Amino acid sequence: MSRPDWIALDWGTSRLRGWAMRRDGTVIEERSSDAGMGRLAPEDFETALRAMAGDWLDQGPVPIVACGMVGARQGWAEASYASVPCPPLSPALTRTPGELDVSIIPGLSQSDPADVMRGEETQIAGFLALNPGWDGVLCLPGSHSKWAHLSAGEVVSFRSFLTGELFAALSTHTVLRHSLANEGWDEVAFDAGVAETLSRPERLASALFSIRAEGLLQGRSGAVQRARLSGLLIGAELAAAKPYWLGQQIGVIGAGGLAGLYVRALAAQGAPATQANGTAATLAGLTAAWKQRTTA
Amino acid sequence: MSRPDWIALDWGTSRLRGWAMRRDGTVIEERSSDAGMGRLAPEDFETALRAMAGDWLDQGPVPIVACGMVGARQGWAEASYASVPCPPLSPALTRTPGELDVSIIPGLSQSDPADVMRGEETQIAGFLALNPGWDGVLCLPGSHSKWAHLSAGEVVSFRSFLTGELFAALSTHTVLRHSLANEGWDEVAFDAGVAETLSRPERLASALFSIRAEGLLQGRSGAVQRARLSGLLIGAELAAAKPYWLGQQIGVIGAGGLAGLYVRALAAQGAPATQANGTAATLAGLTAAWKQRTTA
Repeated sequence: MSRPDWIALDWGTSRLRGWAMRRDGTVIEERSSDAGMGRLAPEDFETALRAMAGDWLDQGPVPIVACGMVGARQGWAEASYASVPCPPLSPALTRTPGELDVSIIPGLSQSDPADVMRGEETQIAGFLALNPGWDGVLCLPGSHSKWAHLSAGEVVSFRSFLTGELFAALSTHTVLRHSLANEGWDEVAFDAGVAETLSRPERLASALFSIRAEGLLQGRSGAVQRARLSGLLIGAELAAAKPYWLGQQIGVIGAGGLAGLYVRALAAQGAPATQANGTAATLAGLTAAWKQRTTA
Repeated sequence: MSRPDWIALDWGTSRLRGWAMRRDGTVIEERSSDAGMGRLAPEDFETALRAMAGDWLDQGPVPIVACGMVGARQGWAEASYASVPCPPLSPALTRTPGELDVSIIPGLSQSDPADVMRGEETQIAGFLALNPGWDGVLCLPGSHSKWAHLSAGEVVSFRSFLTGELFAALSTHTVLRHSLANEGWDEVAFDAGVAETLSRPERLASALFSIRAEGLLQGRSGAVQRARLSGLLIGAELAAAKPYWLGQQIGVIGAGGLAGLYVRALAAQGAPATQANGTAATLAGLTAAWKQRTTA
């Protein structure tokens, strides 16, 4: 393989993904490993990177641009936050210690209400690179889903929601685990769950227990109840995020089924949303950061 | 020790508590063990009971009355639910298999909205036995806290909330674990959390993540954040339970600090509540069931 011009890294809590890149933005090769930031001590990052990308680095120094939790306080090198309102990509990248030429993209912070993101700023930058001049609201579903208001190339404000982690914790570590299947789905139950908490968000706390009670009394299937729990949580998020999305142009970033659920739930509220590929956005954002870096 | 006239058991998911009783309601001796229903197979219950109460049973058969999850489908013997509206104590107790004379108090169910309780019905009956003619709303905080509307000696309706389990799952199994202390408290943060979700319940989903962000950006202490999480969850429960407590006579059952938090949160809403001892209520309820049984 010829030597890459640069390497792009999406280094999150649970996974490391890397792309060997050409100067013109072509991907030479893509790899990933489970060496997420969550299982690494600061001194382990270089080893984990070499284990995944060793031969990409064999023919001499290659600049590397990384985004995600690799820049957290517990990561390889802390990349301090840029404070909104600001463009999603700060020009001030953080260099890691050691011999490799690794630059980490800073996350974004907001002081009031207090909020932070790491990694999503790169997807937002990539989405803007792919859709120049786009104004509106981006939704980035996930463990800690984000809603970001974009205007004139800047992130004006954003809010995070614990929705994904709440789903995981409820379905694994509470009495609801007895009532939920690991697989299966029911669109009617999902839609009803969304409608219930979107119109009456205060019902979430009791609706959660009702999943258990309905399982006991009405024999509702675990697949139906899994869809209902997802709907209740996404509905509660949409209720809280309504000032963001109401009457706005909406983009939902993510290739998978989860982003599709958000698009479906928004459509039911008469709020059409465009779904954008998450990996493409990440890569476009890393590319924008690399270009910005080399011209700085 | 003289032979007890009967034995009272509060057999929950995590603990077994027993009282050797005299006919006149006097407690001869109290014991407890960690042989909760959650760790027992159906064939293990008799052994667990004999391990705790062996010598109480040595001098011949003694009637035993039990409440709680011992009567669940996964318990010793399934005690089917009585359906509200009805008195808290159903006369139809369920006998366990085997040689011991054990009767289990049925739980209560509600068809719409679907809901169930097991164990709390005995506390409600006990509270009514200790406060004859009491009408109003009882709050029973816990892993699955309950609000029950009582009128003319019957449970008219009730609702359960996952608040306690939600607190445990969030503080143990999500990113919030990094931001919370295991101990310590802050009354101002608790009160502010209650006020926030009580007035704007839809904010819960974003307020949860803000605990993490405030920890990172503002260095708020883990004790403050622990109190804030508790306040946010209890505030959301009070918002959902408002149709229950608004303008009603309110009793909160529970001796410990958790019940005190509910009383404090209600007081801040101009809703004074009486706090009642939980163990006394349980024992009074078991006694009422034993009397009812012997006169049937």
